[in-house]
Amino acid sequence: MSVTEPRGFVAAGMACGIKASGAPDLALVATVDGDAVAAAGVFTSNLAAAAPVQVSRAHLAATGGRAAGVIVSSGNANAATGDRGKADAERMCALVGEGLGVSATGVLICQTGLIGIPLPMTPIEAGIPALVAARSAGRPAAEQAATAIMTTDLVRKEVVVDGGGFIVGGMAKGAAMLAPHMATMLAVLTTDAAVEPAALKKALVHAVDGTFNRLTIDGCTSTNDTVLVLASGRAGTPARTGALADALAEACAALAGAMAADAEGASRVVHIIVTGAVSDDAAHTAARKVADSNLVKCSINGEDPYWGRVISELGSAGIAFDMDRVEIAYGDTVVCRGGVAADHDDKAVRAHMAERNVELHCDLGLGQGRAAVLSADLGHGYIDENRTTS
Amino acid sequence: MSVTEPRGFVAAGMACGIKASGAPDLALVATVDGDAVAAAGVFTSNLAAAAPVQVSRAHLAATGGRAAGVIVSSGNANAATGDRGKADAERMCALVGEGLGVSATGVLICQTGLIGIPLPMTPIEAGIPALVAARSAGRPAAEQAATAIMTTDLVRKEVVVDGGGFIVGGMAKGAAMLAPHMATMLAVLTTDAAVEPAALKKALVHAVDGTFNRLTIDGCTSTNDTVLVLASGRAGTPARTGALADALAEACAALAGAMAADAEGASRVVHIIVTGAVSDDAAHTAARKVADSNLVKCSINGEDPYWGRVISELGSAGIAFDMDRVEIAYGDTVVCRGGVAADHDDKAVRAHMAERNVELHCDLGLGQGRAAVLSADLGHGYIDENRTTS
Repeated sequence: MSVTEPRGFVAAGMACGIKASGAPDLALVATVDGDAVAAAGVFTSNLAAAAPVQVSRAHLAATGGRAAGVIVSSGNANAATGDRGKADAERMCALVGEGLGVSATGVLICQTGLIGIPLPMTPIEAGIPALVAARSAGRPAAEQAATAIMTTDLVRKEVVVDGGGFIVGGMAKGAAMLAPHMATMLAVLTTDAAVEPAALKKALVHAVDGTFNRLTIDGCTSTNDTVLVLASGRAGTPARTGALADALAEACAALAGAMAADAEGASRVVHIIVTGAVSDDAAHTAARKVADSNLVKCSINGEDPYWGRVISELGSAGIAFDMDRVEIAYGDTVVCRGGVAADHDDKAVRAHMAERNVELHCDLGLGQGRAAVLSADLGHGYIDENRTTS
Repeated sequence: MSVTEPRGFVAAGMACGIKASGAPDLALVATVDGDAVAAAGVFTSNLAAAAPVQVSRAHLAATGGRAAGVIVSSGNANAATGDRGKADAERMCALVGEGLGVSATGVLICQTGLIGIPLPMTPIEAGIPALVAARSAGRPAAEQAATAIMTTDLVRKEVVVDGGGFIVGGMAKGAAMLAPHMATMLAVLTTDAAVEPAALKKALVHAVDGTFNRLTIDGCTSTNDTVLVLASGRAGTPARTGALADALAEACAALAGAMAADAEGASRVVHIIVTGAVSDDAAHTAARKVADSNLVKCSINGEDPYWGRVISELGSAGIAFDMDRVEIAYGDTVVCRGGVAADHDDKAVRAHMAERNVELHCDLGLGQGRAAVLSADLGHGYIDENRTTS
């Protein structure tokens, strides 16, 4: 059920004709009665932000963090499309608003697909009224919505978290090897918890920072990345302070994990865990440097435990570092200790690297800082998927 | 002749047995009479610096910037080898020093190859006396030295620059798709200009910053990167201030260009030129972000002028940016103007992208800042070369 599991929400999904393939490409998540409820968003830090990102940011600012619905389209990112792109995104919000009985600013928008191509507005304008009319709180509608936001995803990504007295539901697309191709990771979350917009924003930022922001495939920050949450309030205020933040974090973690597991073009999910850094931030910087290293990623693709590349990345990460204290392990097997090669069971390492999930532990031996980052290997599949857009 | 073209230098190269293949792996560049002359070095910023980097830095500090020779070995990086690695590098310098009649601190050392494996000292200790005995100012010796520092390089990289009254010679290995595999770019330069160590260092830093530091293949900073220069003084002080700095920069540019052109595993040399930035530094940051983007590199491999990925990288480079002012061109053809798609001759763009050298021009429309970075595309060859070390 995902986004319609919390009380007070409806959804819909359809193919309107943005994608030449005829696959579903238009989705709606809305409050059941068209009320504008508490809403929050986290958006890409890219200064080349796409039109839908600019429009959603402006709408949240105008309403003080309230929305009645989210329109999502896939197949065209509506990025680098100038004033026309912004007008098109506004027009989509207005059309949804007409259907829901709210102003355009009460509607948020997410889009994903190719950059630099104007939106095909004719099929979209024809599709939106039908989409709004089809909205429902039932399971098929939620599934259709989650399907319509997929691009090269192989599986739908949905989540439901029971917060204890309230529910968080969510759907997402992309990331892993997928996001780069079509640009973007998108997630839309709903909850029936009662919460003020400011508190909702704070909880969302915290949840995203510990989950989606710890997932990196190629270090590229898309023009369209967006995570939105709507809170209907129908379950009342959570009994425990922090319960909503925890449930949101759990939902985001599940969706981020689903993205990594669906990494088309990759053969391995790589878990980089850095400990012993001088701070959590330093650990995160180091983990991300290793995760984004093409040389490390190629080694993992080749099932080669070449830790020399890992220590080289740690040493050039720009953090406090003492080579003589570094310990590196693949899975449970330490291959480098005190900055030099450690005697180890090569068979155990090779067996671990042949698995679908590879763990790379780096201890810097300097402090208590810790971070984990999720990534993937680099193989021919990534290149084949990203060589051409046609 | 390269390193022996300036007056006062000899060289030698041989196979001592570091490489299992039996290929040449040991090289020497020295002053003809064993005098310690003005010397300077620029080294990797990696905090996991290899033993030879640590030893060369210490020797230059101990002598105040003087050296009689440089020993270079290939096939083993002597990186992440701890105290033993430093002792081995010191021992190599001492052996060369015995042959030249100088102390160990009068000898510098560069090494390139696999990380984390102790040096095979037996063949090295047997080889060095023979290498020193074979040193000569003739062309074959300089060629043998330039050959012995190659790893996966397909061609020798040598340069001679006539500074007007003095000469700069140089040899280099690596970079491009090569460096990542064996870790490292190394260059050894010689000149017969007379110059004080401090001025020599300043000129070298300037030359490296504008050349080798503008070459990036995968954003990985090796543990062993080293550029050294020795100045014999036999041609006297250059008549024009800045003449030596200019000649060094010209020599470094030629060697950096040779590295990019020898990019095994790559099909394109990519010239990224950023103009219109608020400063040269901002332009350099932006050019490097585009150059290191796997998505942009994959597009270039696929001959696909997908400028949307370029604008996305520019927007997330962390520099001053206004999407509405961005202009992007492949070769002479503008494909994006004012941040949106520009009508253009698609045939001309495709023809340019089919060439061996691809130019990507990005104008940010904000100021006078300008920078150029040299890179390569990302194809199956890079992965095949870097999957395994065996």
